[in-house]
Amino acid sequence: MALLVEKTTSGREYKVKDMSQADFGRLEIELAEVEMPGLMASRTEFGPSQPFKGAKITGSLHMTIQTAVLIETLTSLGAEVRWCSCNIFSTQDHAAAAIARDSAAVFAWKGETLQEYWWCTERALDWGPGGGPDLIVDDGGDTTLLIHEGVKAEDIFEKTGQFPDPDSTDNAEFKIVLSIIKDGLKTDPKRYHKMKDRVVGVSEETTTGVKRLYQMQANGTLLFPAINVNDSVTKSKFDNLYGCRHSLPDGLMRATDVMIAGKVAVVAGYGDVGKGCAAALKQAGARVIVTEIDPICALQATMEGLQVLTLEDVVSEVDIFVTTTGNKDIIMLDHMKKMKNNAIVCNIGHFDNEIDMLGLETHPGIKRITIKPQTDRWVFPETNTGIIILAEGRLMNLGCATGHPSFVMSCSFTNQVIAQLELWNEKTSGKYEKKVYVLPKHLDEKVAALHLGKLGARLTKLSKDQADYISVPVEGPYKPFHYRY
Amino acid sequence: MALLVEKTTSGREYKVKDMSQADFGRLEIELAEVEMPGLMASRTEFGPSQPFKGAKITGSLHMTIQTAVLIETLTSLGAEVRWCSCNIFSTQDHAAAAIARDSAAVFAWKGETLQEYWWCTERALDWGPGGGPDLIVDDGGDTTLLIHEGVKAEDIFEKTGQFPDPDSTDNAEFKIVLSIIKDGLKTDPKRYHKMKDRVVGVSEETTTGVKRLYQMQANGTLLFPAINVNDSVTKSKFDNLYGCRHSLPDGLMRATDVMIAGKVAVVAGYGDVGKGCAAALKQAGARVIVTEIDPICALQATMEGLQVLTLEDVVSEVDIFVTTTGNKDIIMLDHMKKMKNNAIVCNIGHFDNEIDMLGLETHPGIKRITIKPQTDRWVFPETNTGIIILAEGRLMNLGCATGHPSFVMSCSFTNQVIAQLELWNEKTSGKYEKKVYVLPKHLDEKVAALHLGKLGARLTKLSKDQADYISVPVEGPYKPFHYRY
Amino acid sequence: MALLVEKTTSGREYKVKDMSQADFGRLEIELAEVEMPGLMASRTEFGPSQPFKGAKITGSLHMTIQTAVLIETLTSLGAEVRWCSCNIFSTQDHAAAAIARDSAAVFAWKGETLQEYWWCTERALDWGPGGGPDLIVDDGGDTTLLIHEGVKAEDIFEKTGQFPDPDSTDNAEFKIVLSIIKDGLKTDPKRYHKMKDRVVGVSEETTTGVKRLYQMQANGTLLFPAINVNDSVTKSKFDNLYGCRHSLPDGLMRATDVMIAGKVAVVAGYGDVGKGCAAALKQAGARVIVTEIDPICALQATMEGLQVLTLEDVVSEVDIFVTTTGNKDIIMLDHMKKMKNNAIVCNIGHFDNEIDMLGLETHPGIKRITIKPQTDRWVFPETNTGIIILAEGRLMNLGCATGHPSFVMSCSFTNQVIAQLELWNEKTSGKYEKKVYVLPKHLDEKVAALHLGKLGARLTKLSKDQADYISVPVEGPYKPFHYRY
Amino acid sequence: MALLVEKTTSGREYKVKDMSQADFGRLEIELAEVEMPGLMASRTEFGPSQPFKGAKITGSLHMTIQTAVLIETLTSLGAEVRWCSCNIFSTQDHAAAAIARDSAAVFAWKGETLQEYWWCTERALDWGPGGGPDLIVDDGGDTTLLIHEGVKAEDIFEKTGQFPDPDSTDNAEFKIVLSIIKDGLKTDPKRYHKMKDRVVGVSEETTTGVKRLYQMQANGTLLFPAINVNDSVTKSKFDNLYGCRHSLPDGLMRATDVMIAGKVAVVAGYGDVGKGCAAALKQAGARVIVTEIDPICALQATMEGLQVLTLEDVVSEVDIFVTTTGNKDIIMLDHMKKMKNNAIVCNIGHFDNEIDMLGLETHPGIKRITIKPQTDRWVFPETNTGIIILAEGRLMNLGCATGHPSFVMSCSFTNQVIAQLELWNEKTSGKYEKKVYVLPKHLDEKVAALHLGKLGARLTKLSKDQADYISVPVEGPYKPFHYRY
Repeated sequence: MALLVEKTTSGREYKVKDMSQADFGRLEIELAEVEMPGLMASRTEFGPSQPFKGAKITGSLHMTIQTAVLIETLTSLGAEVRWCSCNIFSTQDHAAAAIARDSAAVFAWKGETLQEYWWCTERALDWGPGGGPDLIVDDGGDTTLLIHEGVKAEDIFEKTGQFPDPDSTDNAEFKIVLSIIKDGLKTDPKRYHKMKDRVVGVSEETTTGVKRLYQMQANGTLLFPAINVNDSVTKSKFDNLYGCRHSLPDGLMRATDVMIAGKVAVVAGYGDVGKGCAAALKQAGARVIVTEIDPICALQATMEGLQVLTLEDVVSEVDIFVTTTGNKDIIMLDHMKKMKNNAIVCNIGHFDNEIDMLGLETHPGIKRITIKPQTDRWVFPETNTGIIILAEGRLMNLGCATGHPSFVMSCSFTNQVIAQLELWNEKTSGKYEKKVYVLPKHLDEKVAALHLGKLGARLTKLSKDQADYISVPVEGPYKPFHYRY
Repeated sequence: MALLVEKTTSGREYKVKDMSQADFGRLEIELAEVEMPGLMASRTEFGPSQPFKGAKITGSLHMTIQTAVLIETLTSLGAEVRWCSCNIFSTQDHAAAAIARDSAAVFAWKGETLQEYWWCTERALDWGPGGGPDLIVDDGGDTTLLIHEGVKAEDIFEKTGQFPDPDSTDNAEFKIVLSIIKDGLKTDPKRYHKMKDRVVGVSEETTTGVKRLYQMQANGTLLFPAINVNDSVTKSKFDNLYGCRHSLPDGLMRATDVMIAGKVAVVAGYGDVGKGCAAALKQAGARVIVTEIDPICALQATMEGLQVLTLEDVVSEVDIFVTTTGNKDIIMLDHMKKMKNNAIVCNIGHFDNEIDMLGLETHPGIKRITIKPQTDRWVFPETNTGIIILAEGRLMNLGCATGHPSFVMSCSFTNQVIAQLELWNEKTSGKYEKKVYVLPKHLDEKVAALHLGKLGARLTKLSKDQADYISVPVEGPYKPFHYRY
Repeated sequence: MALLVEKTTSGREYKVKDMSQADFGRLEIELAEVEMPGLMASRTEFGPSQPFKGAKITGSLHMTIQTAVLIETLTSLGAEVRWCSCNIFSTQDHAAAAIARDSAAVFAWKGETLQEYWWCTERALDWGPGGGPDLIVDDGGDTTLLIHEGVKAEDIFEKTGQFPDPDSTDNAEFKIVLSIIKDGLKTDPKRYHKMKDRVVGVSEETTTGVKRLYQMQANGTLLFPAINVNDSVTKSKFDNLYGCRHSLPDGLMRATDVMIAGKVAVVAGYGDVGKGCAAALKQAGARVIVTEIDPICALQATMEGLQVLTLEDVVSEVDIFVTTTGNKDIIMLDHMKKMKNNAIVCNIGHFDNEIDMLGLETHPGIKRITIKPQTDRWVFPETNTGIIILAEGRLMNLGCATGHPSFVMSCSFTNQVIAQLELWNEKTSGKYEKKVYVLPKHLDEKVAALHLGKLGARLTKLSKDQADYISVPVEGPYKPFHYRY
Repeated sequence: MALLVEKTTSGREYKVKDMSQADFGRLEIELAEVEMPGLMASRTEFGPSQPFKGAKITGSLHMTIQTAVLIETLTSLGAEVRWCSCNIFSTQDHAAAAIARDSAAVFAWKGETLQEYWWCTERALDWGPGGGPDLIVDDGGDTTLLIHEGVKAEDIFEKTGQFPDPDSTDNAEFKIVLSIIKDGLKTDPKRYHKMKDRVVGVSEETTTGVKRLYQMQANGTLLFPAINVNDSVTKSKFDNLYGCRHSLPDGLMRATDVMIAGKVAVVAGYGDVGKGCAAALKQAGARVIVTEIDPICALQATMEGLQVLTLEDVVSEVDIFVTTTGNKDIIMLDHMKKMKNNAIVCNIGHFDNEIDMLGLETHPGIKRITIKPQTDRWVFPETNTGIIILAEGRLMNLGCATGHPSFVMSCSFTNQVIAQLELWNEKTSGKYEKKVYVLPKHLDEKVAALHLGKLGARLTKLSKDQADYISVPVEGPYKPFHYRY
């Protein structure tokens, strides 16, 4: 692998696209700070006491401007940080440059190959002889996966002397993971064991990563405590919903300039992400059809005037397809072959397997015309008509636009900061076992409260008498755990 | 008390306003049946096996057309039913008449006095010498309260020989409750003990009633199992939200004919009910301001473009005030004195104590001009300007309009039917202790599924492969317990 | 005809349903005054100079609370007024009673027969020996029609001695018109000639009436000047649009209590009325389909995310049908036979001939079940399924609810007052020929300005420099005649 | 001036930024063609007869991808075309390159200086010795202005021998215009006379240009016929409204990535552009305040729930300012000094003088920090806080994004094609005098009809009987001239 780590004048490692964009990145970081009141309030509240002093944090999360503000919040609280992106297209190169130059070790650029992606992940985990990380910020769970797979392979190697075999899997990406672990084993057969022994915990950002964690918890294979940040109300009901309501049309516009009004759109899945996407498309004047497996979410869609049908019912009449399911095999080659000319197909849910990219790529005679990066027209030989795939089937809001805006990411990332603080402060208390936890409601409410002032909102105060009447403390939390918002 | 129970030719007891409206009620019940697919499907599925055979059910829930379809679903499954309303204004007299004539013992009319209200409640609970009820359908918890207070008083009486003293409380309504219990004690000092011994359980409809149940559970005073129907997703996220989105403007229009567009409205509280109300007002062209104590709900409001302020900030500029909090003392006399001439003040949340009706009524020199029933203009002597109070501060959608529409009540009431079935089927199994339970998610999803066909919605089916990928059964439930929808 | 005119103690004629409702009417009129700032400002501005002194005004316009405020504005400016409704279902009996008792001669009640309707119209035109009217306020043009047909018949009679023959037409309503004219001819063969000679002009409220006027202008048969109030911006773009957005759901809810969310609705016609209806239904959570003949309006619908199809495409899947076209034969018997059980069919556009009521009524074996007044279920013998027709196919917002709310009618009616003033003030100047006129834009802008204060709106003032830059006067009018708003 | 015209291998002149982007431009043009059904239908309908054979067309209109499809429609109908942009920032360089290479003489690039801008305009008008243009497509009227000013100067020169004096004006831009004319005079003192004698007519795209034309018509100075394309319904009620609803948020997102939800936005002006902007911002979750001078438009805003206030009322609480007025001096330096830190200020109305850019630039001590092209933060020395100005105060949707999307521009540009055809076909008939005309309604309806198929819309057909009933031809036009849509 010809990838070489570079070093700043101060000796910090990095690998980014173009260090000359650091000034531009810094300007946008400064703008973002004004939009991220929760993170800035965390700096004010916790900065003086340097709670992360001595903590080494590895992050794997879209290396955007917003993430830059998160990273610098962590460092301003005393942490040392190494970072990679969790998506090959999501890095904003000017953000990466600014952070690499000023604050943390970054290994990320827009348009990584899968090989490069995992190299970056491995670099972000490599704290050198001193060891580390102590904490992990994860998004989608790839960093957590690497450690868990590494430990598993080391166990087998210890018992049997066998190296993991990249050829044992058809999955192109998992092949690479196994290669990396294999290479690691050769230099240090306890590399991942040392890591997992040191890791105090991980805070996970998204639905997909959280699902993996709950599965590991269920299987008894989780190696360290995990905080499920995704299911903080101020994360999933804000970032997933309002973030996508903003960034889906942003991505569509930047990638295709297509008029949304008058079009027929299908949103596959009506969870928080789907709700945000459907709202955005409807408001922009599209007629929106939802596909769902869950009758409750389907009934919600109908109450908003959205038609609920199956993809098969409508595939040939739709102009814009958006997958938001968190599942796989949603839009298959057979669907795509029936679509209108220049139908737009994109994914804002989860991995690129929501769309059958493999089927498309390997379809005999298919022609790919790249309009511009992340916007490809795939032409079918049978009909000579084409469809437009955004971001190669990966998250289109990050691939074609700049992801979610700062304000809503401030909600999500303030949860991350609080989760990291909680894990670190309780590292020796035994409060957290090798399980998955959500943050307590009063912290969730605190995150929200930190964001109201910026918007000019003024809260009403509960009187003691009123608080007693509904049996809550005057200062909250105000709702039972099961409350759905 | 001059209230006399009447009897049908078949000997069933009742007390309604006007039996001649029974035909009209029947016609509207038949229309409603077409809009209530969940209840009708329950009749089809369970009717043949008569699962409620032998069960005596007392219900205390707004005696509307929709409730009529619920009652006749219960009777068509074999139950014997006695019913009262849970609100002095919410009865639809034609619905009451049709049910009284055809199906169940009803004690309810629109515009009861408080005295009459509790008389009706007591009648609905009185199953005569054979004893009963076996099951309770409750809304707001008044029937449950009466039994619990009755048992408490009987315990004291047994120990001390003392009757409850209506003069021991300032609360006008609780005075009446104590009087009723006192009267009961004189005829049968074990009346309520017998009841609670027989009651298999209660299913509770609303937030307010549920709160009372959780308090009793916490205090260890709950006397029988309870199923919290309110927190079924298909109840609270539908009836509370979409029901109020429909019935708030309906009530405003019927009561005042006021143009909503262009007006400034305050919605106090941004829970499910508040969200529905704010959406309705915004869509009708009002400018909506929200008051909230909970920072998370407040932040949700801002994301929808709603201003979040305190009542004090805006009280003199607002045209329409709506309380939805489930708390007390929201709009006080001092607020009302500062309002614009003909400001409309109404409550769709909970009891009439959301608005300081007592303060208003006892304000020296205040003049009440009844425009029409449930629409009063209260004129302040200081300014000779007035405000318009709907439904005397009680639930305006039930007092001024006809409550929630059939379709959304079908969701709620199908949960009620399932809850009642569950309690009855498990009456001897010990599955339910003296605690509060919610229905399992697969039943919640079933309720939703029963309502999709009517709307022409078509669900997508998960493949086994996809189900495994996200670790759920193919047939559901599809979401973890904590999922917020 | 057994209809007898009654008289107040002061000797003013009237015929209303129930004079005891006058107090109730007065209370609602007082509420409405607060919501009708344009009319109240007109009283303040013009009242002192009594400009209508000596003017006799006949009005034929829905006898509602809002119209009551219009009438009393006319009388407070000095006019003497006689009034009838322009729709057999639209009278609010309490409004009619209050006006009859206090202010003007009223001949109107809710639920007139056609025979009664035309009797009322004729009464409103009959100013007795002193002659009159001087001015006409018309809605739909029936009063104008009666005079024009009367004059035509008198001309024929004078030439040929022939009476009009009611049997010469199949149209049930026109038969009655001819009978009335025939009866008139017998007593006074110059009755309508005297009227048209005296009438200074008519101001017409609606699209339908305006169309008739332009046709008469084109044919050269128009007998007196007419002001087209409908096409004032502050009328057609407010009352038609925002009025219907309010009153369509109001009518649906009062008539059927049906849940709008989740339903499929067809709006036939996407003019101002159709736009208001479609917006209301969409916002309430329905899926709205539009039918249109005009490609421009159709394209507007698509830009709002509404599907544009033909009635035939969707007739069997729709829950709610609304006609808004101003044309005839929109929903025919054949359509109705294909509809879903309990589909709701209503008209908010124009006459009851938008729906094929005749076809329905005469369908062999059809059964009409009146749920309540203005809400009928018509059951087809072929299928035993039924559809629900509102207000017998007439304007459902007036038949099933209370029409448009006061605030928006204040815009429309302030235009009426200004138009009447204009006609009266210029009665001898020759400014107005026997043509159709619209009000000048500065009066239109004035009407709007009079309504802003009530809503707390504050206008920006143009500087002289800015006004020059865009070539308009500082004080307006601000737009060219062809501007579309 | 160092600007040099370049030539293609075929000898056609051009000056663009980067000819290597022609392939990319071509790909996007091909995508746009699918979205521009009206233009493509025009090619199909008129292409075979080559109606523009011999016509030389000069266009001055944003050189975007959509305009490229317009240009190639004109050339495919036989025209020869020279083109410049009408805005220094609006050119899409890949579109310019593709057209320059393949179809027409283009002089345009993104980021022209004013000097360069007018050089391009003059080049587009210069058809060499053969003379020309025959027809003008104008946007904002700069090309028309240059000819009119040229003719005026030549007249003075002929009479007095005096050259125009660039120093006679303070307006920086007009100085340049005078210089160009002066230079022209030196080489050919009849240059602009020859042009105006040859020009058959101009079709004008926007409100601003149209206003200028009506002023010239009123002054009697208009030199050739003009068709006002802006006031075609399918232009102003589509492009201005739905175009801006799309492109305003697009521009905001690309320039600033700011979250719109939760923000307070002011939209200055509530005409078609303002309505589109306000709708977009409201739907994205902002709280929108409107400023207006026109009471009718103000009242429309209130009916949509928007607050109408003056800029002074709210300037210090607003996050996003958008000017849409078509007037000047809307947001002045004094306003900007009172704004919140990082308030965003942008213009989507008209020229950059809606915002007091001169005041800002010349404010002592002001610091301009360019975040990225078209996104500048201006920092006030007094407070060290800054505001963010988009596109230097010019049209932000064209400067920061890509302008309106293809579909809605297809409506506008099909009107342009029809207008150009009309002028050309009637060039000798005398049908058009030196006045301003709008296209007849049946052509407007035709434009709409051409766009319905793409959206799957199906029109209802009027029967002869229905057409007669409303007195319109079966095939349209369906509305009177004054109809407002």
